[in-house]
Amino acid sequence: MTVDNNGSASPENPGRCYFDWAATAIPEIGCSDIAAPFGNPSSRHQEGQDAREALENARSRCAAVLGVKTEHIYFTSGGTESNAVALHGMLLRKSVACILSSAVEHPSIRENCLVLERLGKQTASIGVEKDGRVTPSTLEQALEQYPHARFAAILGVNNEIGSRMDIPALVKIIRNRKNSAPIHIHSDLVQAAGKVPLDLSAWDVDSASISAHKLGGPRGIGLLYLRKALNPIYTGGGQERGLRPGTENTAGAIALAECLERHANPAAVQAEYQKASERFKRLIRFLRTLRGGFLIPEDREEEDERFSPYIVQAGFRGIPGEVMVRGLDDAGFAVSTGSACSSSSQERPALRSMGLDKQTSLEGIRISQGWTTTIEDIDRLTKAIEAMVVQFGFGREQR
Amino acid sequence: MTVDNNGSASPENPGRCYFDWAATAIPEIGCSDIAAPFGNPSSRHQEGQDAREALENARSRCAAVLGVKTEHIYFTSGGTESNAVALHGMLLRKSVACILSSAVEHPSIRENCLVLERLGKQTASIGVEKDGRVTPSTLEQALEQYPHARFAAILGVNNEIGSRMDIPALVKIIRNRKNSAPIHIHSDLVQAAGKVPLDLSAWDVDSASISAHKLGGPRGIGLLYLRKALNPIYTGGGQERGLRPGTENTAGAIALAECLERHANPAAVQAEYQKASERFKRLIRFLRTLRGGFLIPEDREEEDERFSPYIVQAGFRGIPGEVMVRGLDDAGFAVSTGSACSSSSQERPALRSMGLDKQTSLEGIRISQGWTTTIEDIDRLTKAIEAMVVQFGFGREQR
Repeated sequence: MTVDNNGSASPENPGRCYFDWAATAIPEIGCSDIAAPFGNPSSRHQEGQDAREALENARSRCAAVLGVKTEHIYFTSGGTESNAVALHGMLLRKSVACILSSAVEHPSIRENCLVLERLGKQTASIGVEKDGRVTPSTLEQALEQYPHARFAAILGVNNEIGSRMDIPALVKIIRNRKNSAPIHIHSDLVQAAGKVPLDLSAWDVDSASISAHKLGGPRGIGLLYLRKALNPIYTGGGQERGLRPGTENTAGAIALAECLERHANPAAVQAEYQKASERFKRLIRFLRTLRGGFLIPEDREEEDERFSPYIVQAGFRGIPGEVMVRGLDDAGFAVSTGSACSSSSQERPALRSMGLDKQTSLEGIRISQGWTTTIEDIDRLTKAIEAMVVQFGFGREQR
Repeated sequence: MTVDNNGSASPENPGRCYFDWAATAIPEIGCSDIAAPFGNPSSRHQEGQDAREALENARSRCAAVLGVKTEHIYFTSGGTESNAVALHGMLLRKSVACILSSAVEHPSIRENCLVLERLGKQTASIGVEKDGRVTPSTLEQALEQYPHARFAAILGVNNEIGSRMDIPALVKIIRNRKNSAPIHIHSDLVQAAGKVPLDLSAWDVDSASISAHKLGGPRGIGLLYLRKALNPIYTGGGQERGLRPGTENTAGAIALAECLERHANPAAVQAEYQKASERFKRLIRFLRTLRGGFLIPEDREEEDERFSPYIVQAGFRGIPGEVMVRGLDDAGFAVSTGSACSSSSQERPALRSMGLDKQTSLEGIRISQGWTTTIEDIDRLTKAIEAMVVQFGFGREQR
């Protein structure tokens, strides 16, 4: 059984509903839609220069949507690589002795910090509140404890909980410290771009990551916004002004520009945000009243600015998340436990950092939606969840 | 003016001939030809498992063509990344104090060695003969001088000269040293795969790199053949068994498998090798007899097993390579000086390592062909070269 292009049940696609958009979006723009000149953009002949022009045009389009300078956009193979380039760039900066990152970062930050540790850098965590958010107070605590930190990674929207960080407020706290050396602020915006309002031109972060395939684009392309060049660990042919080596993926870059224009322009973000909120309001209301069901965090409201309206984390008492995921899959619904990017499914570090005990954290499942999700899909999903929970001896007695 | 899909002059494409296949091949297999399940292969639901199956199927197909175990194939974003993963994996191996690489490696090895130096590893060069080849004698010299080396990178076919290394013979020399700790042998096969016979199952290298776009596939996908897992510098979601993080590029992996099956199976390699040799025999004969023209190295024969028949490096006395490239481009021919992957066009380190003086090295141009190149294309090119050289006061008096 396959999912058709909108991920909802349809005559061709009976009974499948896709609710794992945070893992990957249903593709909208493939390389097939892109007419890219085939030349190597680093070649000096006509074919190369045609490709160079197409690549630079894609770069300007990305910059325009994000409201930043074109020369601050570097194409990479995706969000994970963008994060690694920014983070590991610190290896060649002797002045960067200590690296901070929030406790709810994506594995591509979290796991890379372990590598940095092994290579001699100190790394430390910025704690989060029970709602999975870095707040001025948790940030100030970290800055006080690690005054020698020179790098801080704080993501825009967490990929498991959907918790949103108030990036501009947090950046101000970092910038306003007195008598302190500058800190490079990196923000993983993979789950934020196209989903919640962003304003890189005003936020004053030093770098940020975006991935195409979370926005309906192809795999293998993403970007790193970076204000001040750094010395990367992976080098080679000098592509992307020396930041990211390898023959440039022209078709991918054009597809990413297309995705950003469609989904990350402020008007589209606002309009889709409203619709997504409406749909998940219904889901959250259901989960709040379901016997045995609980939201993570428990106090998440039907409409709640602290969270992205595209991601809900919820649990069902006594039912392991993995069992729910399997059961819902059998019933035709694609949901997940946490991140698809998780080396070990027996650990939910982001949830644990919010204060959840191990068992509860392992009961969590992630439901994530996209622009083609419908209210009917939500109703189908809630019915399926209710049926499963009843099987396990819970369920509301009465709606 | 654009090049059509075979790169030769045609009614739709008057006057363009593509001779820069070593920079990138004319695409044959795009993502548009690939029906890939869209799910995230790391997701446990149906959509994810469909994608996982497709990805693993692509992996087995690649392994089958290369005659190696499926679990030794890791997908990456391309040849440059494959080289970086293998090389930088040594950073986390304390036992690897010294890293050797041939003097004619691609920038993705050469430049990364400079990074390793900065991070505390010793790196050293394996010299080449005047024909741009590592020989048993240059290799033995390096091993003697650096007995503590634990890594050696020797590429299969150089990207600028086309010089071929006798990898199995060189590997034997490394393996047969007495009383020495093992050396990880890495071979960049980006210009070798699909062009010259390979036998990874017999060659006894520890790792090797291959890129799709040099084989007619899309950008952003390649593979690393790796026999024994290593700890990578870039980590994240545990994809590719922890070696290469980032949501897997399923469509790209399928396209790569397709490319390898078409072009890297032994029968296809042999058949195309013959044809390519026939075509370039004509070009080499022309260059050998052209007044002012010279081959690099000068003693390259019309048929010469020391070189890939897909790449010729040649120069024209007193005419800077860049001038030739521009002139030929204006005349409708895409050729290049050296690698498109070259941060500085004013340096030709591979050519210099063969003993060429600076001026001569800067006169070199690379002419590289592919499977759709025709004898007629060669004849057009030689006429154009002759016309240009005559303009500069050279040229044969008589053919």
